[in-house]
Amino acid sequence: MSLHGNLILNVKTLVLLDSGLIKGQVRSVSDRNTLTPGSNYAMSNGGGGAGGVSSSTHLLDLLEEPIPGVGTYDDFHTIDWVREKCKDRERHRKINSKKKESAWEFTKSLYDAWSGWLVVTLTGLASGALAGLIDIAADWMNDLKEGVCLSAMWFNHEQCCWGSNETTFAERDKCPQWKTWAELILGQAEGPGSYIMNYFMYTYWALAFAFLAVCLVKVFAPYACGSGIPEIKTILSGFIIRGYLGKWTLMIKTITLVLAVASGLSLGKEGPLVHVACCCGNIFSYLFPKYSKNEAKKREVCALEQTLLCVSVAFGAPIGGVLFSLEEVSYYFPLKTLWRSFFAALVAAFVLRSINPFGNSRLVLFYVEYHTPWYLFELFPFILLGVFGGLWGAFFIRANIAWCRRRKSTRFGKYPVLEVITVAAITAIVAFPNPYTRQNTSELIKELFTDCGPLESSQLCQYRSQMNGSQAYPEGSDAASTPGVYSAMWQLSLALIFKIIMTIFTFGLKVPSGLFIPSMAIGAIAGRIVGIAVEQLAYYHHDWFLFKEWCEVGADCITPGLYAMVGAAACLGGVTRMTVSLVVIVFELTGGLEYIVPLMAAVMTSKWVGDAFGREGIYESHIRLNGYPFLDAKEEFTHTTLAREVMRPRRNDPPLAVLTQDDLTLAELQAIINETSYNGFPVIVSKESQRLVGFALRRDITIAIENARRKQEGIMLNSRVYFTQHAPTLPADSPRPLKLRSILDMSPFTVTDHTPMEIVVDIFRKLGLRQCLVTHNGRLLGIITKKDILRHMAQMANQDPESIMFN
Amino acid sequence: MSLHGNLILNVKTLVLLDSGLIKGQVRSVSDRNTLTPGSNYAMSNGGGGAGGVSSSTHLLDLLEEPIPGVGTYDDFHTIDWVREKCKDRERHRKINSKKKESAWEFTKSLYDAWSGWLVVTLTGLASGALAGLIDIAADWMNDLKEGVCLSAMWFNHEQCCWGSNETTFAERDKCPQWKTWAELILGQAEGPGSYIMNYFMYTYWALAFAFLAVCLVKVFAPYACGSGIPEIKTILSGFIIRGYLGKWTLMIKTITLVLAVASGLSLGKEGPLVHVACCCGNIFSYLFPKYSKNEAKKREVCALEQTLLCVSVAFGAPIGGVLFSLEEVSYYFPLKTLWRSFFAALVAAFVLRSINPFGNSRLVLFYVEYHTPWYLFELFPFILLGVFGGLWGAFFIRANIAWCRRRKSTRFGKYPVLEVITVAAITAIVAFPNPYTRQNTSELIKELFTDCGPLESSQLCQYRSQMNGSQAYPEGSDAASTPGVYSAMWQLSLALIFKIIMTIFTFGLKVPSGLFIPSMAIGAIAGRIVGIAVEQLAYYHHDWFLFKEWCEVGADCITPGLYAMVGAAACLGGVTRMTVSLVVIVFELTGGLEYIVPLMAAVMTSKWVGDAFGREGIYESHIRLNGYPFLDAKEEFTHTTLAREVMRPRRNDPPLAVLTQDDLTLAELQAIINETSYNGFPVIVSKESQRLVGFALRRDITIAIENARRKQEGIMLNSRVYFTQHAPTLPADSPRPLKLRSILDMSPFTVTDHTPMEIVVDIFRKLGLRQCLVTHNGRLLGIITKKDILRHMAQMANQDPESIMFN
Repeated sequence: MSLHGNLILNVKTLVLLDSGLIKGQVRSVSDRNTLTPGSNYAMSNGGGGAGGVSSSTHLLDLLEEPIPGVGTYDDFHTIDWVREKCKDRERHRKINSKKKESAWEFTKSLYDAWSGWLVVTLTGLASGALAGLIDIAADWMNDLKEGVCLSAMWFNHEQCCWGSNETTFAERDKCPQWKTWAELILGQAEGPGSYIMNYFMYTYWALAFAFLAVCLVKVFAPYACGSGIPEIKTILSGFIIRGYLGKWTLMIKTITLVLAVASGLSLGKEGPLVHVACCCGNIFSYLFPKYSKNEAKKREVCALEQTLLCVSVAFGAPIGGVLFSLEEVSYYFPLKTLWRSFFAALVAAFVLRSINPFGNSRLVLFYVEYHTPWYLFELFPFILLGVFGGLWGAFFIRANIAWCRRRKSTRFGKYPVLEVITVAAITAIVAFPNPYTRQNTSELIKELFTDCGPLESSQLCQYRSQMNGSQAYPEGSDAASTPGVYSAMWQLSLALIFKIIMTIFTFGLKVPSGLFIPSMAIGAIAGRIVGIAVEQLAYYHHDWFLFKEWCEVGADCITPGLYAMVGAAACLGGVTRMTVSLVVIVFELTGGLEYIVPLMAAVMTSKWVGDAFGREGIYESHIRLNGYPFLDAKEEFTHTTLAREVMRPRRNDPPLAVLTQDDLTLAELQAIINETSYNGFPVIVSKESQRLVGFALRRDITIAIENARRKQEGIMLNSRVYFTQHAPTLPADSPRPLKLRSILDMSPFTVTDHTPMEIVVDIFRKLGLRQCLVTHNGRLLGIITKKDILRHMAQMANQDPESIMFN
Repeated sequence: MSLHGNLILNVKTLVLLDSGLIKGQVRSVSDRNTLTPGSNYAMSNGGGGAGGVSSSTHLLDLLEEPIPGVGTYDDFHTIDWVREKCKDRERHRKINSKKKESAWEFTKSLYDAWSGWLVVTLTGLASGALAGLIDIAADWMNDLKEGVCLSAMWFNHEQCCWGSNETTFAERDKCPQWKTWAELILGQAEGPGSYIMNYFMYTYWALAFAFLAVCLVKVFAPYACGSGIPEIKTILSGFIIRGYLGKWTLMIKTITLVLAVASGLSLGKEGPLVHVACCCGNIFSYLFPKYSKNEAKKREVCALEQTLLCVSVAFGAPIGGVLFSLEEVSYYFPLKTLWRSFFAALVAAFVLRSINPFGNSRLVLFYVEYHTPWYLFELFPFILLGVFGGLWGAFFIRANIAWCRRRKSTRFGKYPVLEVITVAAITAIVAFPNPYTRQNTSELIKELFTDCGPLESSQLCQYRSQMNGSQAYPEGSDAASTPGVYSAMWQLSLALIFKIIMTIFTFGLKVPSGLFIPSMAIGAIAGRIVGIAVEQLAYYHHDWFLFKEWCEVGADCITPGLYAMVGAAACLGGVTRMTVSLVVIVFELTGGLEYIVPLMAAVMTSKWVGDAFGREGIYESHIRLNGYPFLDAKEEFTHTTLAREVMRPRRNDPPLAVLTQDDLTLAELQAIINETSYNGFPVIVSKESQRLVGFALRRDITIAIENARRKQEGIMLNSRVYFTQHAPTLPADSPRPLKLRSILDMSPFTVTDHTPMEIVVDIFRKLGLRQCLVTHNGRLLGIITKKDILRHMAQMANQDPESIMFN
């Protein structure tokens, strides 16, 4: 059952198609493959395929012109990094050698050399502009749920009130131009009637936005749903999903992202922004032949630059972005790319700053400055927050994956629109009464991060001093809490529970949904609660030995905002399992080396606690849930298996399908191709010696035969096919032989059967192979594909290898 | 001539020994190798050696106990990363499997898991403390050249004057406790006599310090000289130089670094600090079996952490440090290490801060804050500075390498003490009259970076407003220059020329010498000159269309300090060819995202201009000059050679020395070992089939034979040696055969003869191989070692392959 090659795979693909998760031009795959059962080892469909270096073979047969179509890939296949890199180097050499011929060629070579920078600049400009537009549109639509600006419809609440005179800090939210829906429809601003009216309109708009978003996604671009990061990680690791980074996905994702954020669902826009930026990069790379014709180069554009664009655009942290992409997509990419990425991040950041969506001419979304240092004893609550972050991360991943699996496996997943509407309705109805859940999540985080300064009017800062008539919160005064703070604490606790539950059900809906903002919000709420608790403790018990030394009576020695920030970092760390880059991102937000130690303590604790419950982050879990062929670079292979235990054919399997180098006829070759569904075949000297000559791809063989039939005369079914340099000696009356050496990859990767699998895995990861041949004492024994490795790793982890393998 | 194996190599080693550059326990190498000429391909000495995975073989023969000594390395050999990694994984598995046996084993496994963090913490503490001590000692000794603090001998000038009452800013340098030498000896502070006295004492102390430094280096630790970064890069890439990171080197380098810095030579302490930190890491790693017994793990400790410690300790830029180490030593190291590195950097930074050598409780050496933004037209001078930086870098590298080559090849290099004394004398004599060269270079950079604020008393800030009696420099007032500024400009120009010349002759002296500070000083001087020029231009021609728009009349719109910073970054970039990390380091110094664009423009221009004259940075050039076996990860291999053109044996060479798996006698085996000097031998099935079985190391064979002679009875010269699982059938009267399977590496890396060299180079780089076997149709053809690749690359670059190859 488990090894039935393409038939199973195609069935599984169809199941996935049906579940709406992977759609696109998959038809090409299922059309092309004749659904033959009984093909038992893993060179099939996506896992197996072409290996090595066609460039070398081209160079050897310069007389034969290259056959068009050879060296491209089908949808849902894995690319061969080594081959792509060689292709690019050959292209580069050609351009370099032509360079001196004429001024035109020289210009072309210059253009080629600069096209990398051009792509990066264009992508940076476009993603920065899109990010700005998304911010502005989401803000406006978010405020539309509450009311409308009479003086100018296209202003959001804040912009509407800029012109107003009543801009004292207490009343900065109230201005005559801005009308809530109750004011507009009922004509009254206060009272239960208007409250219900506002409640109704809020829910109405939220449902409308959510409905629009899910319909757009369902109808126009099914790939636009989710955060996109798991798929992008898979694509960057070398898998081909056509249309995933296309213009339709870009357009629909941009629009629906605005709608989804505005609908008030518990989701963020940072993850989807990575997808948007990747789409931009992919579209611009089609303008340049250097990138459009090479899958590896295309990924290079997409890789670092776009991953980090997100972070830099979203948070204004370009260095953290660089580290983020290094931590997430580390292999295959030359460090040269880093420089370009950095440049792209900066371009995007500057475009974003000139669009100025946050209205404060800062690059940073959550810019905070704290004035008090932290004390050593505070490490204890920080570590507690780390534990909370780790527990939340582990719990969220388990619960979310369980829910997503349920959605995939039961009938429930067939009604995505209904599901989105339900979740949006519950979110809106529960969120409205609580001010902390009603407001925009990023604004909530900003408020929680901010320390109580003299200008702060938030309920969180209503300490006693403020009650005594003075509007300002005196520096270093007593921090006794008031009923206002207590009610804020209650509301925050309810918001925390609400956010935790809703986020689990929201991530994975068929709308664009990111995870950064909700995770940070949960952490920030928890952190702020802990922070206020510690502050009150220090205020009422300032004679405790702990506080005595550090905290003078009446002094303002605890910063609850810092606790919120540490909590946010811990929760984000628990969910994504990022480490260094996360600390750097948050560190860039505050701009002080001062707070790195609390952040590190919390993030490390969170990672350790989270890892105790399962080593995978949310993105890896979703990759595994969807069964993408992704070989994680971070996971270490720790078993003692040898290559011969993993390779196909296994003991009771039929022998490996191989081609001999010079004694097959065309009919025999076609029979082998038709009877099997492998993506490639090893070529050996003879059946007796089993000595390996090279590797030929199924796709290339088919194209070459068709090509020969069209162009060469005298090719018949009993023509001899040969892969050697010189034609074999044939009887006088035999038809003209067919030379296929130009499609033979003469440098396939080989390992011996005694090679430990840890080394094989290492080779696959570092070189980006598709398959590797296994030899013993110079004889061909079998083959290991990327899919075999993934299946073996799943087996080692006690998972059903077939249940998790999509391709 | 070119291929005479070990003889040539040993002679070269001796030459190098003689030149004093590589000293240590090289005897073991030359003793061990019988100097046989005619050994023609490159499995010799350092380049060749063991491959693959001994762990697998151990696992297969669990009955045979491992032979002590097998799997270690000789001095000046290259390690095999794959093998070391496997060894570590096996160790880890053993500990993990034992873990549940007893509480003691569990404690041991916990200790093992935490030892990485322990090493890192200890190293961070030690390097931070050492860096602080070096700073304090160098400051004190530097001031000793000028005078002495009467109230407390151990105070430097600044500390001495802290207690003084006359601390107005103009006279903060003058206080009664601090006596110059003229005041002490002649009893007068002014006048030509006291000037000459001070001049004499300055030169005297400089010479004394330099003499002491060079003598200490020469007598106790010849490895302590230079910056150490080229050697550390080579060691990290897998080369073994025993004693280079030892305790003697650490002690002597620390002491002489203080002396060298204090002597006023044009050198910095940042490069040598990397070496010091690496020594600390190496010494601490001996405390933990996990690290001391594994060369790859040892390098892991050393790698990222220590490289970045330098930058973070030296400049207070931990993130830049992480990127610096990624850019410089990118391969082989798991990203997990990143996290520990970051931690180590922070520990060191906090230790350094608590020692507080800069007296301002800041982590950052050159902390600056600018208040004016930059304007678009300023990009033009910034790019000019970039061009200057690139030109300076290219010029410096060429001149310095030419001078070092001359030193190595002529008799001149035999008198290192004389050379140091001469350079120190010239430096001191020329430097004293000019205040900008007399002062500490780091202080000079700090002064040049600082903007003219109201409290600035520097000559560089003597604008007209100050002349009009007011001490403070009014914000936004007119910036017309005074004679003071003009004389400062002259002095700066002279200082620039002086620094440029002296740095060329200083880098490479037999004292610890870094390059960061002198390069930055040159750039800062050039930048400040350009900055003041642009400022004056804007002041006198504020009606030009360029300035009109940006610069209001009388406004203070140019920041010369920013120009100095941009210039410093450009020059450092030109010399080291670092890119991103450099920008991040300087960005962390200023703490503003604002100035990244000018920095990037300058650093990129500088890199491009520099690359036009030669693609290598100063460290790579020194590596090449010394002929270390370093395979640069950044350099791309762009030629179309195939593996068969690079492999040995070449066409006219004698055949490859191979062992057959079961028909050699012990005498024959010993004959092969004695006649050749290769580090390892491929094992084949039989001479006829040439099918590859595995690879055996010379060192391992020798150890195994000795071991067998000692322990096993009946081993005679005509004993059959076999590498197979079962003993071959032998005649009844033959002596007991010797089984050597346990030392056979059964998974050697192979490539086919048609593999393009670019792929082979990629494999070597990414997997850290020592050698790779070449096959054709399953038959063994030859071997490619790291040395062959380096030699081939040198040939391709039109260099004499033998002249540059030390090992």
